[in-house]
Amino acid sequence: MTQRPAVLIMQRHLAPLSGFLESAYDVYRFWEGPPVEAAHDIRAMVVAGEYPLDKTLIEQLPNLGLIACFTSGYDGIDIEWCRARGLPVTHAPGVNHEDVADHALGLILAARRQIASGDRQVRSGEWTIETRTITASLGGQKLGIVGLGHIGKAVARRAEAFRMAVSWWGPRPHDAEWPRAEALLALAKASDILVVACKADETNIGLISREILDALGPDGLLVNVSRGQVVDEDALIAALKSGALGQAALDVFVTEPTDPARWADVPNALLTPHTGGATTAGVQGMLVLLIENLQAHFAGQPLRTPVA
Amino acid sequence: MTQRPAVLIMQRHLAPLSGFLESAYDVYRFWEGPPVEAAHDIRAMVVAGEYPLDKTLIEQLPNLGLIACFTSGYDGIDIEWCRARGLPVTHAPGVNHEDVADHALGLILAARRQIASGDRQVRSGEWTIETRTITASLGGQKLGIVGLGHIGKAVARRAEAFRMAVSWWGPRPHDAEWPRAEALLALAKASDILVVACKADETNIGLISREILDALGPDGLLVNVSRGQVVDEDALIAALKSGALGQAALDVFVTEPTDPARWADVPNALLTPHTGGATTAGVQGMLVLLIENLQAHFAGQPLRTPVA
Repeated sequence: MTQRPAVLIMQRHLAPLSGFLESAYDVYRFWEGPPVEAAHDIRAMVVAGEYPLDKTLIEQLPNLGLIACFTSGYDGIDIEWCRARGLPVTHAPGVNHEDVADHALGLILAARRQIASGDRQVRSGEWTIETRTITASLGGQKLGIVGLGHIGKAVARRAEAFRMAVSWWGPRPHDAEWPRAEALLALAKASDILVVACKADETNIGLISREILDALGPDGLLVNVSRGQVVDEDALIAALKSGALGQAALDVFVTEPTDPARWADVPNALLTPHTGGATTAGVQGMLVLLIENLQAHFAGQPLRTPVA
Repeated sequence: MTQRPAVLIMQRHLAPLSGFLESAYDVYRFWEGPPVEAAHDIRAMVVAGEYPLDKTLIEQLPNLGLIACFTSGYDGIDIEWCRARGLPVTHAPGVNHEDVADHALGLILAARRQIASGDRQVRSGEWTIETRTITASLGGQKLGIVGLGHIGKAVARRAEAFRMAVSWWGPRPHDAEWPRAEALLALAKASDILVVACKADETNIGLISREILDALGPDGLLVNVSRGQVVDEDALIAALKSGALGQAALDVFVTEPTDPARWADVPNALLTPHTGGATTAGVQGMLVLLIENLQAHFAGQPLRTPVA
């Protein structure tokens, strides 16, 4: 074992973390090859929480003592399995929910007020003296929020400034100033816009099903800033193509990066590359929590933000 | 003179108004040819307020008694000249300022959080496992508003929900909850984002000059939902090309429709086809005021919303 603890970073897009971790740790990068020779040295694993945990790899790391998610979400992590092994998991909660909510409102405005398509219209010369695009006012539109956690509440507060009528649904009641629908289907039926903002886990895969999309309807807008898996993406694409659903604005996808061919013939879809929480302030906040969790772990102190 | 009053609609994009006016008036459409034979019949003119008033034509209409702007803005109308002729002017104030403010926030979010460019990135296959777009959080950004009228105040209220710090400048002090900068240049220097929301008139042509754009700077974002003429558009394009200004998001242009060739090589510009106030609710509100003003005029009653 080397003098400094060894840390394994799993996903390539987390590569920029190396520079911050190398001052204190020996850093291994999984995409450069499995750390066979260092298997006994590795004492913590840094992951993006949306990626499935490689359990076979973990079983080959006898001194692994921590799974540190750089992200807030940890839907790729089998928490029960880790708990059974005595392997703690940390994450970065409460850091970028305001940024994700900003992005959700940006998607609503860009879709409803035709901002991205308007830019294409101007640049292609399709704006002429005879064309006049009329869109629906946001004021008075009914906004349904799926999951009233940090992100959902932050979306609700912003939506009120735009004079939208907010309601929500989640599996558990909350004390909240906005009314809770009796069921998700009822929320979708009553809403002009449905924003998916819930935490993703194994219980809500495909929660936004064909039935929910049909209830949202031909004038409805679906916004997803949670995780791709919460929406039945094949059903969504079919609903947009048939006109059963009016519009979708998505920051997350079942597979990321999503295959552009999948969306080439899909009308009324606005797509962003999972940038909702990826802000300078958000990333800095996540980095601080990651470092604090690693420091606490190696100092034998209570973890800063363990998964509950 | 016919039994029903005759009304002349000036701009072709106002053609849909014909259907609403024909039940009560004989309607002439200027773009179908000058109303030479009906010159003595025409008693009201319906215009879009941003277009220059055709004074020569007006001098040929001896019984014209009203200029009715369908729009809120009336920057194309020489109010003093009309007043000197005893020709009243009406417009449609306070109808779509909330929609214009929604659009301004949509432009800010789409530009700052790279929503329109993100959509292009996903669709072109430029989103790969190695790319990661990081944008700046809106929270804490300094928003300067030029003109604290109905639109400016509505922008300010929304910006607060996004945790932006709001200040403003206008030629006249107001009682307002947000601080007024001592001058426009000071506002631009202090702001990350400058939103032009003032009423356009002959005093503020080119108000947003090269000096103001330089003060806003290489990280700054200029948003215009007022009128194109308030911004020196040539200076704006030069500033975007040189990097002196970071970004622009524009719903209005010096000439509309704007020539797409003018923007082909301009980086970081988000362009929408003057849709900020063009909502179903806004257009209905404008139509109601237009009809009420025409009815009041022909009944000899006080006008509903005369230009002050």
